[in-house]
Amino acid sequence: MTKRIEIVENILGANEQLAEENRSRLDQAGLYGLNFMASPGAGKTSLIEKTVPALKEKFRVAAVDGDVATTIDADRAAAVGANAVQINTGGECHLDAVMLKQALNQLTLDENDLLIVENVGNLICPANFKLGTHKNVLIASIPEGDDKPYKYPGIYRGVDILVINKIDLLPYIPFRMEYFTKGVEILNPGLMTFSLSCQTGEGLDEWLSWLESEILTFKETHSSPQ
Amino acid sequence: MTKRIEIVENILGANEQLAEENRSRLDQAGLYGLNFMASPGAGKTSLIEKTVPALKEKFRVAAVDGDVATTIDADRAAAVGANAVQINTGGECHLDAVMLKQALNQLTLDENDLLIVENVGNLICPANFKLGTHKNVLIASIPEGDDKPYKYPGIYRGVDILVINKIDLLPYIPFRMEYFTKGVEILNPGLMTFSLSCQTGEGLDEWLSWLESEILTFKETHSSPQ
Repeated sequence: MTKRIEIVENILGANEQLAEENRSRLDQAGLYGLNFMASPGAGKTSLIEKTVPALKEKFRVAAVDGDVATTIDADRAAAVGANAVQINTGGECHLDAVMLKQALNQLTLDENDLLIVENVGNLICPANFKLGTHKNVLIASIPEGDDKPYKYPGIYRGVDILVINKIDLLPYIPFRMEYFTKGVEILNPGLMTFSLSCQTGEGLDEWLSWLESEILTFKETHSSPQ
Repeated sequence: MTKRIEIVENILGANEQLAEENRSRLDQAGLYGLNFMASPGAGKTSLIEKTVPALKEKFRVAAVDGDVATTIDADRAAAVGANAVQINTGGECHLDAVMLKQALNQLTLDENDLLIVENVGNLICPANFKLGTHKNVLIASIPEGDDKPYKYPGIYRGVDILVINKIDLLPYIPFRMEYFTKGVEILNPGLMTFSLSCQTGEGLDEWLSWLESEILTFKETHSSPQ
């Protein structure tokens, strides 16, 4: 068992070092980076589709989409105006810092203001691999059920922002918001949370306002090299 | 890279051997085993909650519930009358044959007729680890979206049965059934599929009839040692 633990520690250590290098590149380019994590189908790509056009008068957005197969997500991000790169992981169930590094090499970093990395749809492994982005965003969705914080504590514990998507479905699904929120609060007290629906647009304004102010604050402290 | 491939092959080879041992134990006990796989929140536990009471006049059901943390699922399975065992994987994103072996040791196998193994909520890694059950069942759900067969081909390719859950939400969600079905058909031609709603009960009868006949057919060819 010790051998196995050592190998895992080495992998995570190497990943962390590469994540720091990615972070430095983003900082130098004045590019603010978010890591979107979620279950399959919770709405990562939908939130990108709503975010990119809403910000496009002010900010250029790059999207890096991770998936086991297909370019469906990058195509959707590109269709709404993002500079999109698809990473196909083969069989891997998460992105890591090496994969993001390779994707960053395909982008002109200082021509973008916001980078959204869309991780592989999975509530477990992505939480263990830092990418070098500035904030980790977890997208939960109402149909997944109210017990998810309790069942996937690792990812709820490790994120900076929580987006609760598909609130338009609340009337049709038994979802105890108080039970859900209690679980989140135990794992990640005071976690900044946005409730919204990418389908109806409800709640998107708060998310977009917050994001705009985040990018502006970041730009004040990290000037682009040009 | 060769080294890594060798290690992965060894792990999968060892798992396969243990899966065969699990299968032999089930066969000898006359216990028919299903492996439920799905995204988080697609309805694995809900389908167990509907299945166990419906069958209880005829069959005794054992449930083995895999999760990263908590005993929520095993508690729910036990509450409806299953002989339930929870496996907490720690941080692992899938069940493997060793974990199932340990769970089987906690059950009196020949006192049960149906075993439902509820895998960890994940559309990627569970597909790579055989457990020794007789059939693999994938539970998809309408809110996950119609592109999932294309994005998670491995799991769609490797299952024997597909259950499409939450069909009661079809009026509220843009889900192109034809696009979904086309993806499934490419990956797994002729896959036996049940469309149902654990919430309203619609379509459950077809699932239950099929399952009853599966268990009876199995029992005819595998008699219990007693």
